[in-house]
Amino acid sequence: MKDSIARVADRSRREFLQTAMLAAGASIVSLPALARQTDKKLGVALVGLGSLSTNQIAPALQKTEHCRLAAIVTGTPAKAKAWSEKYSIAEKNIYNYGSFDRVADNPEIDVVYVVLPNSMHAEYTIRAARANKHVLCEKPMANSAKDCEAMIAACQKANRKLAIGYRLHFEPHNLEAKRLGQEKVLGKLRAIEAGFGFVIGDPTQWRLKKALAGGGALMDVGIYALQGARYVSGEEPIEVVAVETKTDPVKFKEVDETIYFTLRFPSGLLANCGTSYNAGFNRLWAGAEKGWFELSPAYSYGGIKGRMSGDKTISLPQVDQFAAELDDFALCIKNNKPSGVSGEEGLRDLRIIEAIYQSIASGKAVRLKAGG
Amino acid sequence: MKDSIARVADRSRREFLQTAMLAAGASIVSLPALARQTDKKLGVALVGLGSLSTNQIAPALQKTEHCRLAAIVTGTPAKAKAWSEKYSIAEKNIYNYGSFDRVADNPEIDVVYVVLPNSMHAEYTIRAARANKHVLCEKPMANSAKDCEAMIAACQKANRKLAIGYRLHFEPHNLEAKRLGQEKVLGKLRAIEAGFGFVIGDPTQWRLKKALAGGGALMDVGIYALQGARYVSGEEPIEVVAVETKTDPVKFKEVDETIYFTLRFPSGLLANCGTSYNAGFNRLWAGAEKGWFELSPAYSYGGIKGRMSGDKTISLPQVDQFAAELDDFALCIKNNKPSGVSGEEGLRDLRIIEAIYQSIASGKAVRLKAGG
Repeated sequence: MKDSIARVADRSRREFLQTAMLAAGASIVSLPALARQTDKKLGVALVGLGSLSTNQIAPALQKTEHCRLAAIVTGTPAKAKAWSEKYSIAEKNIYNYGSFDRVADNPEIDVVYVVLPNSMHAEYTIRAARANKHVLCEKPMANSAKDCEAMIAACQKANRKLAIGYRLHFEPHNLEAKRLGQEKVLGKLRAIEAGFGFVIGDPTQWRLKKALAGGGALMDVGIYALQGARYVSGEEPIEVVAVETKTDPVKFKEVDETIYFTLRFPSGLLANCGTSYNAGFNRLWAGAEKGWFELSPAYSYGGIKGRMSGDKTISLPQVDQFAAELDDFALCIKNNKPSGVSGEEGLRDLRIIEAIYQSIASGKAVRLKAGG
Repeated sequence: MKDSIARVADRSRREFLQTAMLAAGASIVSLPALARQTDKKLGVALVGLGSLSTNQIAPALQKTEHCRLAAIVTGTPAKAKAWSEKYSIAEKNIYNYGSFDRVADNPEIDVVYVVLPNSMHAEYTIRAARANKHVLCEKPMANSAKDCEAMIAACQKANRKLAIGYRLHFEPHNLEAKRLGQEKVLGKLRAIEAGFGFVIGDPTQWRLKKALAGGGALMDVGIYALQGARYVSGEEPIEVVAVETKTDPVKFKEVDETIYFTLRFPSGLLANCGTSYNAGFNRLWAGAEKGWFELSPAYSYGGIKGRMSGDKTISLPQVDQFAAELDDFALCIKNNKPSGVSGEEGLRDLRIIEAIYQSIASGKAVRLKAGG
């Protein structure tokens, strides 16, 4: 929705500029250059060719209006071969983790999309910024708020844009939930409940290793519930209280399995949130003065469904969330506009996540600085 | 369901006894006496004629198999008149709070049903026990665990039965949720979510006055979420963590408005629960190894609906929960069997509720003694 609105806005702006320049008698010669600049698809280098890149992001890149898959970065030669054949990627646009910094010399690459295990987000974001590339980094932004700060600083220093892969900011039902909450369509909010959990498979995967993942369910999917609570309320939490359990202490030896956490917002509103790697739930609910609304499933790649009090459904188009996210970032770059899912937004979540882990460890409520 | 099972069991037992006695050549003379004893409807004195008595309990008493409305206790002469006319209650069976203790001399009264504001539960339960009557007391059992202990002691001393008005223990969908959870029908439980809240009306009512209600939403409806978590898990919590807010600090000056609390059970299971007097929600959900089940609404007087993973519905008969609760208590008395919703059960909840308030006040996790 935001994406299509952005597209329309971009088109209008272009038409306005062309008309304005013609009216002003500007040289006709400059028009193709302007059009080329605006219409050029930004080249994206995909770093890390795991399941998310394979099944979601690469297909999404085939649908984007403003991006194209220009390069890949992988440590696995077999993947390099398969991808280069499937997506016609030239040999010179294939990198491994050793050669990655040479993306600096490749003018076909505008954006580096970091889709690596969480522990590697900071390093590759910073290296990409040093290579003078804009960076789109998957969530969670990093394993610590400190790393997030270093990533932001690196991108600022290089004067490059940084955005986090918060795909639901471009999903129509979630945008509608945000609108219903922030614009108080049903009156003042009185409670939010948000939970995202699933039963994780392969016990050997990187997501269950502390060194690679930083944390477990909270870092991976609890962050969506946290995001939901934040964008529906439009507020930043001032206090968190959290409880953790491991119903399977063997499988989840290194990372958190199931966490419930409550956020207190400045208005007095509470958001009660949950996450799990061992139980499935997928819900964003808010109660307000004049009714309630709910998305369930709320956070999936597709098939989002919404309901409201008064026996209403929230039924909006299902979009390719990754394509919308990529196009939004491309337009932010092209138009030099700030991203709504900036590094600062990723940092806010990591600060809250650290407070949640702190509350679990201490068994106490943890205060947060207002404004995250 | 339990009720109808209990009825069948009772009938079978009676038939078995009659057959056995006849077979043993027992005196025929004893049969009518036995039948009279077993078939007699127990006389119930209803104490407090507010909305619950008027709209739910009195109509339920017209449907019970083993109880009848024998007497009323009210401080309002107009109510005494209206009720005596509507339900043909003799003058001698109408009491006020001053004359209440004289129920001791009334053989038509077997059971006193206490439906007063929470702060009066202990006093009237103890006075009823001293008058040698069995007592059914509405939830929450009392305003403190200490009061609950005194109520149990008074009934034990008088050798009278005490049960708490936990109507959902006699509601088929809730019984099915209990079975699904406790018998691990979908495997080991991995998470429970339970919440009951509604937007309370009249700001002058007793439920919003601390002295009468003891507490707010938690005492009144949060107790259903607490109960749900306990009967679905079949476990007693060993720790609680709770957070409170008042989105309307004026209306909820004296009592709690919105509370989220998490219970930790000995198995490691967490139950995440919520309650509110200012937001509507009504849900009991459990996730297990092989799926999930949910009741929503879960706690209403009627219209309970259930769903399960695999696109299944849980659709069972809707019963008059108060009639079922009353008949169960009558059969416990007639057959001298323990009630499943005994005073001890009410006391367990009050101990947990006190720990929840303690966690809110301290901002810390509060440990509970194992076994409540």
